[in-house]
Amino acid sequence: MAVPPSTYPRRLLPLFLGLFQGALLLFFALFVTYAEPSAQEEDTNLVANQVYSTFPFFQDIQVMLVVGLGLLLTFLPRYGFSALTHNFLLLHFSMQWALVLQGLLHHFHHGQIHLDLHKLLISEFAAVTVLISVGAILGRASPCQLLIMATCEIPIYLASEWVIVTRLGVLDVGGTITIHVFSCYFGLGVSKALFRATQQPLHPKETPTTSSDLVSLVGTLILWVFWPSFVAVLCQPGDAQHRAILNTLLAMSASAITTVVASSLLERDGKLSPGHLQNGSLAGGVAIGVVADMAVPPVAALALGSLSATVCVLGFRFLTPLLGRKLALHDQCGIHNLHGLPGILGAAASVVAILVASKDTSVSHPSQLSPAGGNASEALCQAAGLAVAIGASLLAGLLTGAALRLPCLARPPERLCFDDSLYFKLQDQAESPGPDSSAEEGALALKE
Amino acid sequence: MAVPPSTYPRRLLPLFLGLFQGALLLFFALFVTYAEPSAQEEDTNLVANQVYSTFPFFQDIQVMLVVGLGLLLTFLPRYGFSALTHNFLLLHFSMQWALVLQGLLHHFHHGQIHLDLHKLLISEFAAVTVLISVGAILGRASPCQLLIMATCEIPIYLASEWVIVTRLGVLDVGGTITIHVFSCYFGLGVSKALFRATQQPLHPKETPTTSSDLVSLVGTLILWVFWPSFVAVLCQPGDAQHRAILNTLLAMSASAITTVVASSLLERDGKLSPGHLQNGSLAGGVAIGVVADMAVPPVAALALGSLSATVCVLGFRFLTPLLGRKLALHDQCGIHNLHGLPGILGAAASVVAILVASKDTSVSHPSQLSPAGGNASEALCQAAGLAVAIGASLLAGLLTGAALRLPCLARPPERLCFDDSLYFKLQDQAESPGPDSSAEEGALALKE
Amino acid sequence: MAVPPSTYPRRLLPLFLGLFQGALLLFFALFVTYAEPSAQEEDTNLVANQVYSTFPFFQDIQVMLVVGLGLLLTFLPRYGFSALTHNFLLLHFSMQWALVLQGLLHHFHHGQIHLDLHKLLISEFAAVTVLISVGAILGRASPCQLLIMATCEIPIYLASEWVIVTRLGVLDVGGTITIHVFSCYFGLGVSKALFRATQQPLHPKETPTTSSDLVSLVGTLILWVFWPSFVAVLCQPGDAQHRAILNTLLAMSASAITTVVASSLLERDGKLSPGHLQNGSLAGGVAIGVVADMAVPPVAALALGSLSATVCVLGFRFLTPLLGRKLALHDQCGIHNLHGLPGILGAAASVVAILVASKDTSVSHPSQLSPAGGNASEALCQAAGLAVAIGASLLAGLLTGAALRLPCLARPPERLCFDDSLYFKLQDQAESPGPDSSAEEGALALKE
Repeated sequence: MAVPPSTYPRRLLPLFLGLFQGALLLFFALFVTYAEPSAQEEDTNLVANQVYSTFPFFQDIQVMLVVGLGLLLTFLPRYGFSALTHNFLLLHFSMQWALVLQGLLHHFHHGQIHLDLHKLLISEFAAVTVLISVGAILGRASPCQLLIMATCEIPIYLASEWVIVTRLGVLDVGGTITIHVFSCYFGLGVSKALFRATQQPLHPKETPTTSSDLVSLVGTLILWVFWPSFVAVLCQPGDAQHRAILNTLLAMSASAITTVVASSLLERDGKLSPGHLQNGSLAGGVAIGVVADMAVPPVAALALGSLSATVCVLGFRFLTPLLGRKLALHDQCGIHNLHGLPGILGAAASVVAILVASKDTSVSHPSQLSPAGGNASEALCQAAGLAVAIGASLLAGLLTGAALRLPCLARPPERLCFDDSLYFKLQDQAESPGPDSSAEEGALALKE
Repeated sequence: MAVPPSTYPRRLLPLFLGLFQGALLLFFALFVTYAEPSAQEEDTNLVANQVYSTFPFFQDIQVMLVVGLGLLLTFLPRYGFSALTHNFLLLHFSMQWALVLQGLLHHFHHGQIHLDLHKLLISEFAAVTVLISVGAILGRASPCQLLIMATCEIPIYLASEWVIVTRLGVLDVGGTITIHVFSCYFGLGVSKALFRATQQPLHPKETPTTSSDLVSLVGTLILWVFWPSFVAVLCQPGDAQHRAILNTLLAMSASAITTVVASSLLERDGKLSPGHLQNGSLAGGVAIGVVADMAVPPVAALALGSLSATVCVLGFRFLTPLLGRKLALHDQCGIHNLHGLPGILGAAASVVAILVASKDTSVSHPSQLSPAGGNASEALCQAAGLAVAIGASLLAGLLTGAALRLPCLARPPERLCFDDSLYFKLQDQAESPGPDSSAEEGALALKE
Repeated sequence: MAVPPSTYPRRLLPLFLGLFQGALLLFFALFVTYAEPSAQEEDTNLVANQVYSTFPFFQDIQVMLVVGLGLLLTFLPRYGFSALTHNFLLLHFSMQWALVLQGLLHHFHHGQIHLDLHKLLISEFAAVTVLISVGAILGRASPCQLLIMATCEIPIYLASEWVIVTRLGVLDVGGTITIHVFSCYFGLGVSKALFRATQQPLHPKETPTTSSDLVSLVGTLILWVFWPSFVAVLCQPGDAQHRAILNTLLAMSASAITTVVASSLLERDGKLSPGHLQNGSLAGGVAIGVVADMAVPPVAALALGSLSATVCVLGFRFLTPLLGRKLALHDQCGIHNLHGLPGILGAAASVVAILVASKDTSVSHPSQLSPAGGNASEALCQAAGLAVAIGASLLAGLLTGAALRLPCLARPPERLCFDDSLYFKLQDQAESPGPDSSAEEGALALKE
C-alpha cells in the first residue's frame, strides 16, 4: 500500500505520547513515593493480608480489561489489531493520567503521594470509562482522537464521581452509575458531535465474519467469568463482599439464559444473533453493580439480570436502528444497549431497593447514610446521581466530540476506516475479503 | 440461506427456557435468601476468610468451564459458535436447575435456603456432568435435545452422588467417579439410544481444520492450567489440599509427556495427532481426582498420570473405532477415552491406595471411614461406588436418549449437522470450505 | 504428504521421552515423599495460609508459561501447533528434569526429599530458561534437538543460579539476571553453534500473517497481565511483595506506551510494527525483576520500563539485522531484544539502586547483605553476577549448539522448517498459503 503523503498526523501520536510520558516521569519524580516500610511484624502481616485480599481481584480485572474487552472489540474483521492495541494503549494512558489527576486532586494537600495497589485500582476504574466510551466510535476515529478523548474524559469522570459518591452519597459499589452510565452517554455525546447529522453508511469492512464474531464471543466469556471481581473488589470484606459476588453471579447467569430467549424470539427465523450474545450475557453485570452489596434478596438479582438482558437485546433490535435513523446517532458497539440501558435499570433498582428495605438493614455501609431523612432521601440521592451522570457526561461528551473534529487529529477517511493497515505494518494483505480493497486504498492514499 | 419452513422447533427453545426462568424466579422468591449478615466482627473475618479461600478456586473453575471447555469443543470447524454457546447455555441452565433441586432435596426441611458460594460451587459441579455428557453427541443434537438431556441428567446425578458419597461413603474429592465416570456413561447411553444401530457416517463438516484444532488445543491448555483448582477446591484446607494440588500437578505433567510418547508410537509415521494431545494431556487430571487428597506417594501420582494418558491415547486409536464398528456407538469428542477409561483407572487406583495404606494415615477424612471393617471394607465401597456410577448412568442415559428421539425436539437433519448457520445468524457464509454447501443447505431447507 | 523415508528420528523422540519418564518414576519412587501431615491444628492453618498465599501466584505463572508464552510463539503462521506443543512439552520435561537435579543437588544429603509447592515453583522457574532460549532457534530445530538442549541447559542454569545467588549474594528476586539474561545468551550461543556461519535466508513460511500476529499479540497481553505474579511470587510477604507488584505494574505500563512511541518513530511511515508491540510491551517486566523489591522510588520503575521498551524496539530495528549480517547470528523471536538487552539494563539499574540507596533501607533482604563492605561491594556483586550469567550461558550455549549438530537429532531440512505438517497429523493442508507447497514437501520427502 502506498503511504499517505500527509505525514503530520503520524508524528502527532508519538509526539503526544512522548510528551505525556515525560510529564508523567517528572510528576512521579517530584511527588510520588511508596509508603515507608513498616518495622513492626504486625504491620507486615497487615500489608500482606491486604495484598492477598486485593491482588487476585486486581488481576481478574486486568484480565477483563486487557484480554476480555480487547477480544470483545475484535468483532470488526479487519480491525482486530487496532481494537486490541488501542484498547491496551488507552488503558495505560488513561490509568496514568488518572493517577496524576487523582494525585493532584485528592492527595496534594497531604504533600507526598503514597502509591499503593488501591490507588492503582481506582485509577484503573477511571480508565474503564474511556474504554467503554470508545465503543461508540470504534473504527472511525484515529488513535490521536482517542487519546484526546481520554484526556478530556478522565478529569470529567473524576469530578462527576466525586459529586456523585462523595457529595451526594450515592451507593454504587460496582460503578453502575459512575462508570457504566457515565461512560455510555459520554461516548454517545462524542459520537454525535463528531459525526454530526451525517448518518454513517454501512462500511463494507464493518460486517463481522464468523471467525471475528467467534473471537469476540470468547472476549465476552472472559469478561463474564471475571465480572464478579470487578463488582466486588471495593466491597467491605465479609458479608457484603460475599453477597456482591453471589448477586453478580446470579444476575449474570440469568442474563445469559434470558439473552438466548430474547434473541431467539426477536429474530424472525428464531436464529440467535452473535451481537446479542456478545452483549446481552454481560448486561446483568452492568445493572447489578449498584445494588450488589445491598441486602436485596437473591431473586432480585435474578430478576434484574433477566430484565437487563431483555432490555439490552431489545435495544439492539429496535432502539439502535431508531436512534440511527431519527437522531443520526452512531453507536458502533452498541454501548447504549450494554452500558446505558442496563445501567439506568440498575439505578432504578437501587432506588426501589432502598425504598423497600427497612432502614437498618438496607445497605452495607450504614455510615454513608444520612442519619436524618432516612430511605426516601437516600433513594432521591440515587436518582440525583443518575441524573448527574447522564447530564454531565452528555454535555462533556458533546464538547469533547466537537474538539475531536480539529483537522490536525486526522480522522481517517471513510474508505480507510475499519482497517488495520492504516495503523499497522502488516506483512500480508492477502487476507482482505475484497480482492480490490488494497488497490482502492492505494488510490485513495495517493489522492489525499 | 432459506429459512426452514417448520418454525415450531425454533420457538420451543425460547419457550422452554422462558418457562424455566419464570419457575426459577418463583422458586427463589419463595424459598431462597442470603444468610443474615453477622453482627460480630469475628464472624465477618470468618466470612471474609472463607471468601478469600474459596473464591480464587471458584474463578479458576469458571474459566475452565466457560472458556477452556468451550474452546476445547470448537474443534469442529463450522460449529464453533454452537459449541461455545451451547456449552455456556447448558452450564447456566444445569447450574440453576441443580440449585433448585438441591434446595428442594437437601435443604427444604430446614425451611429457608441460605445461598452461599459453596452451594453455587456444588451446583456448578453438577452442571459439569452435563457439559461432559454432551461431548458424545456434539454437533448432531439440537439445543432443545441438549436441554432435555440436562433436565434428566441433573436429578439422576444428584441421586447417584448422594448414594455414592453419602450412603456408601466413597472418597472422591475430585469427582473422578461421581462426575467423570458418571457423565461419560450417561453420555454414551444417550448416544446409543439416540442414534440406535445406525452407524453415523463421516460428515464432511466433521473433520477439524488446522486452525480449529489449534483453538481446541488452546482450550486444552486452559483446562490443564486450572485443573488443580477443580480437584482441590473441596479438600480440607491445609495438608490435604496442598497434597491434592501437588498430586494433580504431578499427574497432569506426566500425562502431558506420556501423551506425546504414546501418540508418536501409535501413529505409523510417528506424527502426533492433535486429538491425542487435546485429550491425553488432561487424562491424568481425571484419574487423580479420587486419590488426590489421600496419602499416596508422589510416584503414584506420576504413574497414574502416565497410565491414564496411555489408556486415553490407546482408546482413541483402537477402542473408539472398535465400539463404532461393533456396537455402532457414536462418541463425537471421545469422552470415553478422556473421562471413562481414566476415571475407571482412578477408581481402581483408589482401591489399591486404600488397601495398601495403613488405616490411620490412608485418608484425609478419617471421620468418613466406617470405624469397623477397616480398609478392606472401604476399598469395597470405592468399587461399589464405581459400579453404581456406571450402572445408574448407563441406564438413565439410555432412557434419556430414547426420550430425545421425540420428533418435537427437532434433531437436525444429517446434512445440517455440525453447522452453526442452523442456529446462528452469521453474516458471512463465505468462509464455508465447500463452495456449494450453502446451496445444498438451501435446497435441503426447502425440501423439509 | 509423503512420509519421509527415514523413520529413525521419529522414533527417537518417544524413545528419549519414554526413558526419561521411566527414570523419573524410579527417582520419585526411591527418594521423593510428601511431608508428614501435621497433627496440630496450628500447623494446618500454617500450611493452609502458605497454600493460599502461593497458589494464586503459581496459577498465574502457569497461565503465563502454558497459554501466554505458547500463544506468543504462534506468530509463525504454519507453525502454531508446533510452537504451542513444543513449548508445553519442554515446560514439563524441563520442570521434571529440574526437580530431579535439584533433588539430587540440594536435598540429597538430607535423605528423603519432601516435595512441596515451593519446590515445584523453583523447578518451573528453571524450566522458563529453556522456553526462552528456544526462541532463538524456533522453527528450525527438531523436537529432539530441543529436548537435548533442555537436558543441557537445566543443570547449567542450576549451577549458574547457585553461583550467582548463593555464592555471590546477588539480589534478583524476579530472575532478571539468573533467568532472562542467562537464557538469552544461552539461546544465542546455541543458535550460533547450530547454524554456524551460514546466514539463514528468509523462509517463505516465516512471514507472519495478520491473524497469526494477532494471536501472538493476545499471548503478549496474557503475559503482560500476569507478569507481576512472576516477579513477586518469591518476595518476602508484606511491604517487599507489595512494592514488587507496584514496580512491575508501573514499569510495564510505561513499556506499553513507550513501545508505541518508539515503534511509530522508527518506522518510516509511522505505522506500528506488530513485532515491536508483541515484545516491547513486556520489556519493562524483564528489566524490573532485579530491582522490583528494592526501595527504589516509583519514578525509577517508570523510567526503567520506558528505557527498556526503547532499547527493545531499537534492538529489533537495528541490532538484530546487524547481528544477522555481521555475525550471521540468527535470533528467530528476537530474544536478545526482549530478554538480553532489558536484562542487562535491569542489572545496571540494580547496581545504581544499591549505590544510591543508604545501606539500611536499600534492600528488602538485609540478611543477604555482606555486613562488611557495604553497598559498593554489593553493587560489585550484582555486576559480577551479570558477568557470570552472560559468560557461562554463552559458553555453555555454544557447546550445546555444537552437540545439537549430531546428525541423529534430525534437524529438519530447510524447506520443511516452520511447518506443522512435519510433526503433526493435520487433516487439512488446504490452508497452506502456497498452492504448491505440499507438492514441494512430497518431492523433498521422496528425495531424502
